[in-house]
Amino acid sequence: MEKDAQKSRLTSLNIPALTGGRVGSGPLSSSSRVSVLDRWMARKLLDLLGDPPLTFVLWNGETIPSVDKPSVARVHFRDGEVLQKLLVNPALHFGDLYSAGRIEVEGDLVEFLVLAYRTAGSSPKYQKLKEAQTRLFNRPRSNRLTDSRDNIHHHYDIGNDFYELWLDCEAMQYTCAYFPTPDLTLEQAQRAKMDHVCRKLQLKPGDRVVEAGCGWGGLALHMAQHYGVRVRSYNISHQQILYARERARAAGLGDSVEYVEDDYRNISGEFDVFVSVGMLEHVGRDNYVALGDVINRCLAPHGRGLIHSIGRNKPERLNAWIEKRIFPGGYPPALSEMMDIFEPHDFSVLDIENLRLHYARTLEHWFERFEQSAEKIEKKYDSAFVRAWRLYLAGSIAGFTAGTMQLFQVLFTRAANNDLPWSRAHLYKFE
Amino acid sequence: MEKDAQKSRLTSLNIPALTGGRVGSGPLSSSSRVSVLDRWMARKLLDLLGDPPLTFVLWNGETIPSVDKPSVARVHFRDGEVLQKLLVNPALHFGDLYSAGRIEVEGDLVEFLVLAYRTAGSSPKYQKLKEAQTRLFNRPRSNRLTDSRDNIHHHYDIGNDFYELWLDCEAMQYTCAYFPTPDLTLEQAQRAKMDHVCRKLQLKPGDRVVEAGCGWGGLALHMAQHYGVRVRSYNISHQQILYARERARAAGLGDSVEYVEDDYRNISGEFDVFVSVGMLEHVGRDNYVALGDVINRCLAPHGRGLIHSIGRNKPERLNAWIEKRIFPGGYPPALSEMMDIFEPHDFSVLDIENLRLHYARTLEHWFERFEQSAEKIEKKYDSAFVRAWRLYLAGSIAGFTAGTMQLFQVLFTRAANNDLPWSRAHLYKFE
Repeated sequence: MEKDAQKSRLTSLNIPALTGGRVGSGPLSSSSRVSVLDRWMARKLLDLLGDPPLTFVLWNGETIPSVDKPSVARVHFRDGEVLQKLLVNPALHFGDLYSAGRIEVEGDLVEFLVLAYRTAGSSPKYQKLKEAQTRLFNRPRSNRLTDSRDNIHHHYDIGNDFYELWLDCEAMQYTCAYFPTPDLTLEQAQRAKMDHVCRKLQLKPGDRVVEAGCGWGGLALHMAQHYGVRVRSYNISHQQILYARERARAAGLGDSVEYVEDDYRNISGEFDVFVSVGMLEHVGRDNYVALGDVINRCLAPHGRGLIHSIGRNKPERLNAWIEKRIFPGGYPPALSEMMDIFEPHDFSVLDIENLRLHYARTLEHWFERFEQSAEKIEKKYDSAFVRAWRLYLAGSIAGFTAGTMQLFQVLFTRAANNDLPWSRAHLYKFE
Repeated sequence: MEKDAQKSRLTSLNIPALTGGRVGSGPLSSSSRVSVLDRWMARKLLDLLGDPPLTFVLWNGETIPSVDKPSVARVHFRDGEVLQKLLVNPALHFGDLYSAGRIEVEGDLVEFLVLAYRTAGSSPKYQKLKEAQTRLFNRPRSNRLTDSRDNIHHHYDIGNDFYELWLDCEAMQYTCAYFPTPDLTLEQAQRAKMDHVCRKLQLKPGDRVVEAGCGWGGLALHMAQHYGVRVRSYNISHQQILYARERARAAGLGDSVEYVEDDYRNISGEFDVFVSVGMLEHVGRDNYVALGDVINRCLAPHGRGLIHSIGRNKPERLNAWIEKRIFPGGYPPALSEMMDIFEPHDFSVLDIENLRLHYARTLEHWFERFEQSAEKIEKKYDSAFVRAWRLYLAGSIAGFTAGTMQLFQVLFTRAANNDLPWSRAHLYKFE
């Protein structure tokens, strides 16, 4: 299974990689001179990354290290400025330079990124530099009400038809799927994820559910359709809300599901269940207490809640490039940080499950489908867009594979709620 | 099930409660005068507790409130000093005064304590007082190496035969059992707990296991006997170590299990599995980073670990009386605090399960057995000892029932370990 997926990545990635991107798309060897300083910078960069088994290919064809040794990938640099930029802020500039075609990766892009995450992650020099860069250059975007709208618009309003090309075609879930066995199709695994969430929440017909951040509305529909609950879902992405309303109307569930184009901070009413799948990443570190206040305000005395979010093993800023280009305002929290939602209101955490490898698997599906539509996407947008999304998807597979990113599902309830199942076996009698 | 257990508590508790304890064991009405100040203090105390449905009976038979209204319990105060002390530091003095027989509870002790926890917990006045008292009077005991030995000796070296009277008779587990269905016997549920832990850790024959805090050695024996692993278990309770060694010898498992009388901070060697069930409560807030260092030092690259501990929904000091008389140095952490063990070393939390109601159920079993042996225990120790343990066990049932205490099992591994099961279904195919 892994082998096939890798092969397809190899095929679809290496061809554009070796024929070049939008910028600097000349032949692999260029005539511009390689100086002593350039070679020093390339060696310095390898050293900074913790000396991984990589070969750097400079713009004149020269390789660093010069002696051939087995390497996971050959990384082509198109010009000298690339090296300068990478030495100053590798996390930020790698993405932009790759998107612009000024860096090419010959070999499996995911494997290369897994290696880079692992070696850089254990390189003290790299960690030191990253911390300094984070402090100096890369302040997180705010997530005040108006900023959140801009941040969300940036990512989710690219166009529903773009996401339709590579997300599951049933429920348009842009969040980690659940693979009780890894050979499920993406559609099966997204259905399994929604059911896993519903079972954890022990939905009963008639329950009033509020959803914070509903994407294209698939989970709300699934809950209403299969569990007989009434759902009110909040989202500030205009395009997603339109799409979701249309889907609910078409499914004849307009009475059970209400999509509200508003911020989670404006949730009102009382609910038996609070659910949020894939929104916390956008909430921002400073707003966890406010999110907890919202939940406390809207949850009934015996209410249950579930938050599903990308997370970290330890507090750490999002990769600078992802934060700048892909998810402005994004921040995946460590569990210690996430507790700011629950502890001030004495919520009781019942169950935390880490689905890290499920997200790697989900992303492999997305990546494969994305590559199958890469030409179509390039025609509509441009090559830099395709390369940026390729890097983002491959980098995410790598992050979840290398263990720098986690996926937490946190189930909680109010402190005094004793109406709890004795075991979690009820989640597994369907598997 | 609950009803029967409550009835047996009622019978066994009310008789001594109404005939009096060691101190102040006169008739319910005493001739000493009740002043205006005494009445004011009694009303103040009710107010402080958030005005729960209780009747206070003063030493002359007078009741507060004076008008009869339905109440969960009648609380008898033997003398005026009791009221003064309770107003100054209720959390600390209630236990001592109850143990001395100067307070009696007429009605179900557990029900009374659940009510007190719930109403005091939501009374702002009580919370304010408690915080002030905690700051002023009740500094936590240190858990430096030598202090830890004293603290553990205080509780665990009371005498193995005392614990044999009311713990499960198979494995002497002085930690929360696991009730996949609540009607299991205590012995079945303790076995189920040990298996639940072993399955979470995915023990394989030949695995090297290190255990921090092994009690009377039951889990180590179970692991060796049923999972074919080699276990090295650390404990600083001399009596427990002697007991555990004798049990291993008798079971013919002396070669597979080694009991080391030493502190967890002195663990050495490399292990595939780290396990600690019921020790973290004694480690103390300041030592979590040190515990994480120990685990990091001893865990193999693909190692797994599990910590099972009493915890809290939010950071909060242990009840002052429990901390002073029962568990010196004890501190049950909130999850945010517990993360100090894992985050500095990039450990990946895989699964957290909250078994709160399982501990209430476990304690109900212990409490019932304890009461069956109360006379025998009183003969060996004294009435104050029995009353203190009665209050501690009943108070613990109440804490886990009211939701002021939690029980967390945290499963973790190293960040780069991808040898993980796709689902948790393997834990439940036996239930």
